[in-house]
Amino acid sequence: MTNKTPPAKNGPDSPGSVGWITPKKAVLATPERPFRLESGASMRHITVEYEAYGKLGSRRDNVVLLAHALSMDAHAAGWDGTAMEKTTSGRFKARKEGYAPPRSYRQRKPGWWDTMIGPGKPIDTDEFFVVCSNVLGSCYGTTGPADIDPDTGAPYGLSFPTVTVGDWVSLQARLLDSLGIGRIHAVIGGSLGGQQALEWALAYPERVGKAIVLAASARLSTQGVAFNSVGRYSIINDPNFNKGDYYGHSAPAHGLAAARMLAHITYLSDAGMDVKFGRRLQEQERPDAESGFAVESYLKYQGKSFVERFDANSYIYVTRAMDNYDAAERWGGGDLATACDRIRAEMLVASFSSDWLYTPDGCRELVSAICKNGKPVTYADIPSQYGHDAFLVEAERVGKLLRGALRAGRNRARAPQ
Amino acid sequence: MTNKTPPAKNGPDSPGSVGWITPKKAVLATPERPFRLESGASMRHITVEYEAYGKLGSRRDNVVLLAHALSMDAHAAGWDGTAMEKTTSGRFKARKEGYAPPRSYRQRKPGWWDTMIGPGKPIDTDEFFVVCSNVLGSCYGTTGPADIDPDTGAPYGLSFPTVTVGDWVSLQARLLDSLGIGRIHAVIGGSLGGQQALEWALAYPERVGKAIVLAASARLSTQGVAFNSVGRYSIINDPNFNKGDYYGHSAPAHGLAAARMLAHITYLSDAGMDVKFGRRLQEQERPDAESGFAVESYLKYQGKSFVERFDANSYIYVTRAMDNYDAAERWGGGDLATACDRIRAEMLVASFSSDWLYTPDGCRELVSAICKNGKPVTYADIPSQYGHDAFLVEAERVGKLLRGALRAGRNRARAPQ
Repeated sequence: MTNKTPPAKNGPDSPGSVGWITPKKAVLATPERPFRLESGASMRHITVEYEAYGKLGSRRDNVVLLAHALSMDAHAAGWDGTAMEKTTSGRFKARKEGYAPPRSYRQRKPGWWDTMIGPGKPIDTDEFFVVCSNVLGSCYGTTGPADIDPDTGAPYGLSFPTVTVGDWVSLQARLLDSLGIGRIHAVIGGSLGGQQALEWALAYPERVGKAIVLAASARLSTQGVAFNSVGRYSIINDPNFNKGDYYGHSAPAHGLAAARMLAHITYLSDAGMDVKFGRRLQEQERPDAESGFAVESYLKYQGKSFVERFDANSYIYVTRAMDNYDAAERWGGGDLATACDRIRAEMLVASFSSDWLYTPDGCRELVSAICKNGKPVTYADIPSQYGHDAFLVEAERVGKLLRGALRAGRNRARAPQ
Repeated sequence: MTNKTPPAKNGPDSPGSVGWITPKKAVLATPERPFRLESGASMRHITVEYEAYGKLGSRRDNVVLLAHALSMDAHAAGWDGTAMEKTTSGRFKARKEGYAPPRSYRQRKPGWWDTMIGPGKPIDTDEFFVVCSNVLGSCYGTTGPADIDPDTGAPYGLSFPTVTVGDWVSLQARLLDSLGIGRIHAVIGGSLGGQQALEWALAYPERVGKAIVLAASARLSTQGVAFNSVGRYSIINDPNFNKGDYYGHSAPAHGLAAARMLAHITYLSDAGMDVKFGRRLQEQERPDAESGFAVESYLKYQGKSFVERFDANSYIYVTRAMDNYDAAERWGGGDLATACDRIRAEMLVASFSSDWLYTPDGCRELVSAICKNGKPVTYADIPSQYGHDAFLVEAERVGKLLRGALRAGRNRARAPQ
């Protein structure tokens, strides 16, 4: 950001932006109306943070639900307008210890899918009412381990119940109920969000018109589980972790950073890293700085900045949900085709050629299972060097897919019969 | 190991075994004859541990040099006969804290390539004199960071100088000199050992008859460097690390375990992990044990057992050497074909189809560079699900390759001209 740049094309006032956004809160579980989790636990206090863009049509048939990935939040588009204080240096500042207050992080940039959502954008807010909520167990406004358990007056920490992709989808359904929304035009998600989109199609077949699954398959690979395991190991064995009871003290920052650095490698492709960093050495800021490759510094930066914005306990809960999701097991007794027989939505599955976290093969396995039931499914394998991150980076290709999929059949449905 | 198994087929007394082995020590640097490292540092005290199998022929033309991989040692074959004390429970025991004394680890099983080395085995000790030495900076008998620096009376720790693959090869050359060995029939190595074999062919073209490079290429990929970076991050940020000065105190066990767990994933293939573990859950020994996938328990076990046998500082030094090696840069100003013009050895390169640490593509890049110079090279891509570990696991296939390559031209050379 230098003074030479022209007024931001991509700011809250730009024509394609949804502008300033104030996140909303919905109380979705109370002692009178608890929320039963798949684990069997029952939560009597759940607040969900969500955002909404566009207008709900009078026929309530223009709803697009977004499901976010592991470390994302409800803030999918526009600029967070809740608190605009800057520090004296003019920069937004995040706490160094503990989990970060999400607001300050959000204010540095627009929502995580701002390229896709807005007036005239692929998920066109002139046409659609777009809803995105933060998942249970995360740390961005929805109840999670960092929050105070009203029953004890202390943060939940590891006493927070196990959460699943199924729980998240049920809670999203409860959110839509509370907004008076029944059937949704589409649900869209990438990565762990893509698994939520799939779960929507399986758990609520009658409520979903289209399910758009990007860079996600019916389960994480064993290798993916293994990487998450090592990440959790690093967190849990950070001496600051203290069995998850670290709020108000130093957070297990190094463990969480290591987990993120490792995960970050799985979001990029081998070839992409080679192009981006190769064997370039890091320019040393100080003569005594540790010598190392640029990729090493980059990962350390990624780890450090993640620690400022994410809670270590949440990381454990959310990655466990990611590991545990298995659509075939949940709905088909282990057989994915049997599971997919439940689907009524039009499916769109997109994989990315260099994605090795949710591989094209894994996505095609899902597509085949849907096909076996004679269900409508569109599949695209998008060539990209950006690995798993491609679902966020390949904006033009993904945008075209989304625009086409969301509009398909829509004018016809509205035309007089 | 149950009582039902017949007397070990694979023991020190079995006909294919080299039997009980006593590692040897060679003092290869003294104040009078220091060893100059590529970093510019000069070491005045270096002891190298090595083992030798078979007999050196009167023409001294039957030498096979082995180069070991990251966490291996000089003990490539046979059974360590230096100390046979068992604990009262009848099991060999390793220290839990600090770096492990290598002897106890070694006594649990034969040398790391025992399947390949012995009378009648692919690297036939009836024919060849086989030498393997532990690399500088490691922790298996050759001088490394855990050893006492005679100049200070304290362990080197991070004051140990940076070591490189080139240094290792120079030191191996010095070892051979001390044994009165000039030209070697072959040098063989896998992984980081394969890079040493390549470096031998480049640095000492006139001394090497054949260079056999398994599961290694001319440089580690950026992704590989990234994984090593995260491993080092975990070690360095373990509070026990104490800037490498932890000897006599608790070792940075969790950091080293995390590094190993992560590295271990890169040694296996995605498909191989899926076959081996899939999504199988770990059987819980106790009802209160943490629930998790079998792969998670397996990795934790790998991490734990590694900590008992390897020194964290050594891990940092050896992975740095692995990251920094770049044959093209060293010998060809960045061009691998230019570098390979130096080669006089017959080359054999083998990749393994599911190896994603040193990929078949990377190996083929090396093969092409050799071919461009019209040099003799044999290339095999061995189909395997065992990932990078395949060079150790695919014993039958690798054995055939080695047997053929080591014998080729040997009878002819001995026949009267």
